[in-house]
Amino acid sequence: MKHTLITLLTDFGLADNYVGVLKGVIWGRNPAALLVDLCHQVPPQDLTAAAFLLETSWAYFPPGTIHLAVVDPGVGTSRRLLAAQAGGHYFLGPDNGLFSWVFLHQPPELVVSLENPRYWLPRPSHTFHGRDILAPVAAHLSLGTPLADLGPAVTEWRRLPRPQPCWEEERVLGEVIYVDHFGNLVSNIEATSLQKWRRGRPLQIRLGDQVISHLGDTYMAVPPGQALALSGSHGYLEIAVNQGRAAQRLAADKGTPLVILLQN
Amino acid sequence: MKHTLITLLTDFGLADNYVGVLKGVIWGRNPAALLVDLCHQVPPQDLTAAAFLLETSWAYFPPGTIHLAVVDPGVGTSRRLLAAQAGGHYFLGPDNGLFSWVFLHQPPELVVSLENPRYWLPRPSHTFHGRDILAPVAAHLSLGTPLADLGPAVTEWRRLPRPQPCWEEERVLGEVIYVDHFGNLVSNIEATSLQKWRRGRPLQIRLGDQVISHLGDTYMAVPPGQALALSGSHGYLEIAVNQGRAAQRLAADKGTPLVILLQN
Amino acid sequence: MKHTLITLLTDFGLADNYVGVLKGVIWGRNPAALLVDLCHQVPPQDLTAAAFLLETSWAYFPPGTIHLAVVDPGVGTSRRLLAAQAGGHYFLGPDNGLFSWVFLHQPPELVVSLENPRYWLPRPSHTFHGRDILAPVAAHLSLGTPLADLGPAVTEWRRLPRPQPCWEEERVLGEVIYVDHFGNLVSNIEATSLQKWRRGRPLQIRLGDQVISHLGDTYMAVPPGQALALSGSHGYLEIAVNQGRAAQRLAADKGTPLVILLQN
Repeated sequence: MKHTLITLLTDFGLADNYVGVLKGVIWGRNPAALLVDLCHQVPPQDLTAAAFLLETSWAYFPPGTIHLAVVDPGVGTSRRLLAAQAGGHYFLGPDNGLFSWVFLHQPPELVVSLENPRYWLPRPSHTFHGRDILAPVAAHLSLGTPLADLGPAVTEWRRLPRPQPCWEEERVLGEVIYVDHFGNLVSNIEATSLQKWRRGRPLQIRLGDQVISHLGDTYMAVPPGQALALSGSHGYLEIAVNQGRAAQRLAADKGTPLVILLQN
Repeated sequence: MKHTLITLLTDFGLADNYVGVLKGVIWGRNPAALLVDLCHQVPPQDLTAAAFLLETSWAYFPPGTIHLAVVDPGVGTSRRLLAAQAGGHYFLGPDNGLFSWVFLHQPPELVVSLENPRYWLPRPSHTFHGRDILAPVAAHLSLGTPLADLGPAVTEWRRLPRPQPCWEEERVLGEVIYVDHFGNLVSNIEATSLQKWRRGRPLQIRLGDQVISHLGDTYMAVPPGQALALSGSHGYLEIAVNQGRAAQRLAADKGTPLVILLQN
Repeated sequence: MKHTLITLLTDFGLADNYVGVLKGVIWGRNPAALLVDLCHQVPPQDLTAAAFLLETSWAYFPPGTIHLAVVDPGVGTSRRLLAAQAGGHYFLGPDNGLFSWVFLHQPPELVVSLENPRYWLPRPSHTFHGRDILAPVAAHLSLGTPLADLGPAVTEWRRLPRPQPCWEEERVLGEVIYVDHFGNLVSNIEATSLQKWRRGRPLQIRLGDQVISHLGDTYMAVPPGQALALSGSHGYLEIAVNQGRAAQRLAADKGTPLVILLQN
């Protein structure tokens, strides 16, 4: 029996039965699937948070993994539902740009629009396509149904704008794109790109109008309560406070500018 | 190896180890069981929320599923623990009415009182029967132990009063019975019954003393921030606010009256 | 295929993708592992809460279970990562005392320092050793890799001080060591030891400067809203309020003294 992984990313929260019934629908069809809760506490309808979480998660799963994502303010309207294959993984969800940050790194090989009701629950509701369409389709995909059976191929899909850093000769202009549970501020400046760009030269780091005076490797490189910049686990430059919450301490949030300046 | 599903519904929350040890007890006895967290954030001791979540969940699971529910203010007192078979599913939990809303739709074929300590942990505590009695019993059930081995059959059990809508000639009197994580207000008026009753005639919908002027299919049928009534994914008429929280916006909660009037 | 259980205890919370990617790394290597979320809402960097949850959980899991714990303020510094065998279970995590309360009951038979990078992800980050080192090591352990292959044996490890009760002739001096999701106050006074010590004699129980006048078996031994002491499910004397929150009602917290006096 093949143990296909299916990851679940939603804004359903954990206070209701929405995630549970979705799993019931999948496991009722494929009890050998392995279900991983990627996150269910995406802020309601926050597409960019969901896009970031997918972009920084999918590569840690084995090839063949199905990533089911439901952050879907347009549920029940004419927006399409898509299934895509990219980098040996599968992506299932509404056509609202959720996967487009993954696709920046890994262009999809095939994208189809879910239009074949054979793989859906009978009489799908207008308000819960995750349970009624995406979950049974994920189960069928995990059992080996080819992507092409799910609906017609499409060549266009929605893209979610992703704030890109601006690499100048003497400075990099980035911004905070995600704030995690610890209050760490994750920027859009890739840590490895920054290493190449700086070529060992000293830097000054500014978050909004504050100077972050330390660039370190670990949270404990500064005394408790002090801020530092470091290469975060997502692969991006991150601003953190040792044993504290950078978002609160530095009054920063998604969108706060982060500027790296060469020091002479 | 049979992959029996066991759903878990509790008010244990996720901040402690209560759910984890309960799973350890089950998987220690049947590693092939599939465990689904239906919800662990039932408000402490809120029996009606738990009853509603079970009523609207169980049918999405495959036949043979065991539904283990522990919202149990009377733990350790003389209240009984029950195991029931209904509609091809199993239900395990305290005799406090948790399952009685399921039984309104699906009368149980057999109900037993858990009195055979052979299937329990040795020396069960007075305060955590979920871990010490229900979890090992669920594991044994999933391994094929017949219901009748667990204890004597009973013919009476507690029923939790369920607010029923009143269908009059010109109006329906209902109420809000559940508020979800998105702030959506779920009523006790079944959407399909309402369709039959109205026979295409125009309606006015009143929530408390407010008029909900739109009846639509999807959240986006109204502009962001506006309220509408729609047929929710639970199967009941629901009041929602597009991209907003109806409970807060309309200052409504469990028990708020919802009245449907025929319009002439 | 062996279904080894792996429990996960972290302070990662559930709002990000940290727990999800950790599971992806494990299941990518051993899809037959059974993953149990013990708790992910340990307060950030609260080592004593994590130590208590492990101490009171591990014995409910079957022999051979791997307990992976990541509460790790020192991540990326020179603190070691350890794997230990104790009581037929395995324990994996940073060397900061997380396991030392388990080891008080069950001294480890073998402890090794994780130094063999063969079992890690390539190029581990400095800030997420849970994902990059501990998760793949847990997967390899669950597949049968011997502990001794993971790194050299060590004979010293960090111990976290555990507040011990003081048993005098006429009184016991204890304190609250854990507050759960229901607001119950768990003390460090073992319930069975207290039974032996008191030999049936009447007791007075003082929490801070308040007298807890009832010692019962179940929450419902007192009217709703009233406090009582009882033998809690963790095995320790616990102060609770029937259908209420003892921590708030009695203004008590971790560290509040609990004194048991013999009554004459």
